[in-house]
Amino acid sequence: MKRYFENVKKTSPLIHCITNYVTVNDCANILIAAGGSPIMSDDIEDAPAITAICTGLCINIGTLNSRTIPAMFASGKKSNELNHPVLLDPVGAGASPLRTQTASGLLEELEIAVVRGNMSEIKALAMGSKTTKGVDANAADTVNSGNIDAAVDFAKDFARSNRTVAAITGAVDIVANSKKAFVIYNGVPMMSQITGSGCMLSALTAAFVAANKDNPLEASAAAVAAMGVCGEIAFEKTIAEKGGNSSFRNHLIDAFYNLDSQIFEEKIKYEIR
Amino acid sequence: MKRYFENVKKTSPLIHCITNYVTVNDCANILIAAGGSPIMSDDIEDAPAITAICTGLCINIGTLNSRTIPAMFASGKKSNELNHPVLLDPVGAGASPLRTQTASGLLEELEIAVVRGNMSEIKALAMGSKTTKGVDANAADTVNSGNIDAAVDFAKDFARSNRTVAAITGAVDIVANSKKAFVIYNGVPMMSQITGSGCMLSALTAAFVAANKDNPLEASAAAVAAMGVCGEIAFEKTIAEKGGNSSFRNHLIDAFYNLDSQIFEEKIKYEIR
Amino acid sequence: MKRYFENVKKTSPLIHCITNYVTVNDCANILIAAGGSPIMSDDIEDAPAITAICTGLCINIGTLNSRTIPAMFASGKKSNELNHPVLLDPVGAGASPLRTQTASGLLEELEIAVVRGNMSEIKALAMGSKTTKGVDANAADTVNSGNIDAAVDFAKDFARSNRTVAAITGAVDIVANSKKAFVIYNGVPMMSQITGSGCMLSALTAAFVAANKDNPLEASAAAVAAMGVCGEIAFEKTIAEKGGNSSFRNHLIDAFYNLDSQIFEEKIKYEIR
Repeated sequence: MKRYFENVKKTSPLIHCITNYVTVNDCANILIAAGGSPIMSDDIEDAPAITAICTGLCINIGTLNSRTIPAMFASGKKSNELNHPVLLDPVGAGASPLRTQTASGLLEELEIAVVRGNMSEIKALAMGSKTTKGVDANAADTVNSGNIDAAVDFAKDFARSNRTVAAITGAVDIVANSKKAFVIYNGVPMMSQITGSGCMLSALTAAFVAANKDNPLEASAAAVAAMGVCGEIAFEKTIAEKGGNSSFRNHLIDAFYNLDSQIFEEKIKYEIR
Repeated sequence: MKRYFENVKKTSPLIHCITNYVTVNDCANILIAAGGSPIMSDDIEDAPAITAICTGLCINIGTLNSRTIPAMFASGKKSNELNHPVLLDPVGAGASPLRTQTASGLLEELEIAVVRGNMSEIKALAMGSKTTKGVDANAADTVNSGNIDAAVDFAKDFARSNRTVAAITGAVDIVANSKKAFVIYNGVPMMSQITGSGCMLSALTAAFVAANKDNPLEASAAAVAAMGVCGEIAFEKTIAEKGGNSSFRNHLIDAFYNLDSQIFEEKIKYEIR
Repeated sequence: MKRYFENVKKTSPLIHCITNYVTVNDCANILIAAGGSPIMSDDIEDAPAITAICTGLCINIGTLNSRTIPAMFASGKKSNELNHPVLLDPVGAGASPLRTQTASGLLEELEIAVVRGNMSEIKALAMGSKTTKGVDANAADTVNSGNIDAAVDFAKDFARSNRTVAAITGAVDIVANSKKAFVIYNGVPMMSQITGSGCMLSALTAAFVAANKDNPLEASAAAVAAMGVCGEIAFEKTIAEKGGNSSFRNHLIDAFYNLDSQIFEEKIKYEIR
């Protein structure tokens, strides 16, 4: 997996993020930490031109509004024209009609290379579920050792139906295309104790896929695994210094900045289904 | 006071924040640190639906604009319909006509459970004062040992006139309804050396009140005292490591994450008037 | 140079920032660290009134949009009327037509005390260049020991043509009016490994110029040099603790908070051309 990680540093992909204002700073800093370069632009008068100078696009609907939604569609189409990968993070799909509809609309009208969300959000996109509790995964949607098979089947089906890669993250992460799934066991619960773990991962995944255009599945799995490994490293540091979630956030970004590809390779825990 | 604090962790209230983009990340992280869960949404097409799945609403006018103001009113009304508490943070009231008018309008049209601001902002709401210096309290409005009685009377009057709880924070904090006031002596001056102390406290207070619906006065006082206690803890750590205001911000959020309810109870300094 | 730095702490200028949502929190915290006071407002219904209570204005076009652009012009005009300094940070000029046009329009219609950008952005404003790679300086535009003379001439020409101070930052920083240039050698490469080094410097420069209205050139040079010195201090701390770019960001703001004016004076490295 390490070459997908190394390719980000080698190619330094410029990633256009249309993303929420809650976690945007962390997304920018972790993209830089990984070796990428961020640029944010969310107005239809500016966004397609910015898309055109980038090599990947991350659309995150976390604080979507009437002004930014048209920019998401326009930049998505521009990215598709240029054959640049588009990642969709359907933050809060299932939590409100506008979020579910916007995410569904983007998935239908655009070629989306990767959808990165929690199980509640992906299910909302797949089935019109209304069980999402805010932007966090509903407890009933947690993937654990007892329901991995069902979750893998669901992820493959979702990927097949939507001609995309599904990156469904939680206690266990599943990254799948229609035929193959990576089940990833890295990460720590504290990742859900900060805002933005998911948003940061989405921005990173866009960079990994942009740097590894021929391998979107493997690149996405590498991004998810790298985030999990960095979560583990950050957690150890946070505990050692008796820190809290703000320290954890800093250590997480720092861990990506300092992650050695050999250590990454050694720490990955996954299986292929 | 500790049970109001513990109830946040027990019930994990989902708080809808319509808040400014300056401090939004800190608001989200400190809400999580306290045991709550944040969701941000500020467009009228999305906000009322998000309000409906939450248990409390925090309206902060720090970077209000023509698109978000209608969402504030709409979500406030939805919250009132559902009998969920609404907190208003009138950031910069008195500093511009739009801020004063918007905050006044929200206070008039909505049932506001708590108004949390500095003395300049609350006075601007009460009296149309124009002495606010930006978003910080004007020096003349500082509550200190010499004018607590007058400030308590003012807070009670404001609470009575507006059928709300007034949480007026500064060197000394006053949290009052029409009959009873908590005068709180926790906190450190360094809290005014970061952006967002007030915004974070407002988000927290919304969570405390949502988790203690029958006791909005006591829950607000507990939130204010807890923030002060965490400020003290964070200040000690910052000084010990010769840090600055960025370290202090991290330590403040960390302190909330790690705050033990017994230690909270021991460190509170307040009197009832 | 230290008196320009000390004047910020003495006068505590209130700076109105119309700035991007990516780095806005860091801008606010570093303004406070330097002794200034930030207020953010970006809607035309609010911004000019906020400008009127401030002593300086920082316009940063990093996430410009159809709603905020009119506020930039309106606040700029209000600031000019009141004879308050206006700083322009043309983030991404050259990267999209809207950015280039907006920055050019602001520079033409307003009296801009200082333009602070990287060489790619300033060249885009000067020559309609289209070589900007996102929001970072294009490698070909790096100022180094081999091309300082040409860069100084360019900066003076730009300053003369636009009746402003040009603060062009990179590996070597050049701050010039039509007659005189400061070439500043402080700073570390890690400053380009976080988002917001440039944005923070722009906000700071606005504060330095507002606190030293008769000396915009020297005040701008002092701001640039102080940022470089703080970058050096932050880099040492970051390396010592094996941190990454998130730690560096915190140390950078902390360094400004703790910077002693005598140490600042000792660490400055510059020459006048």
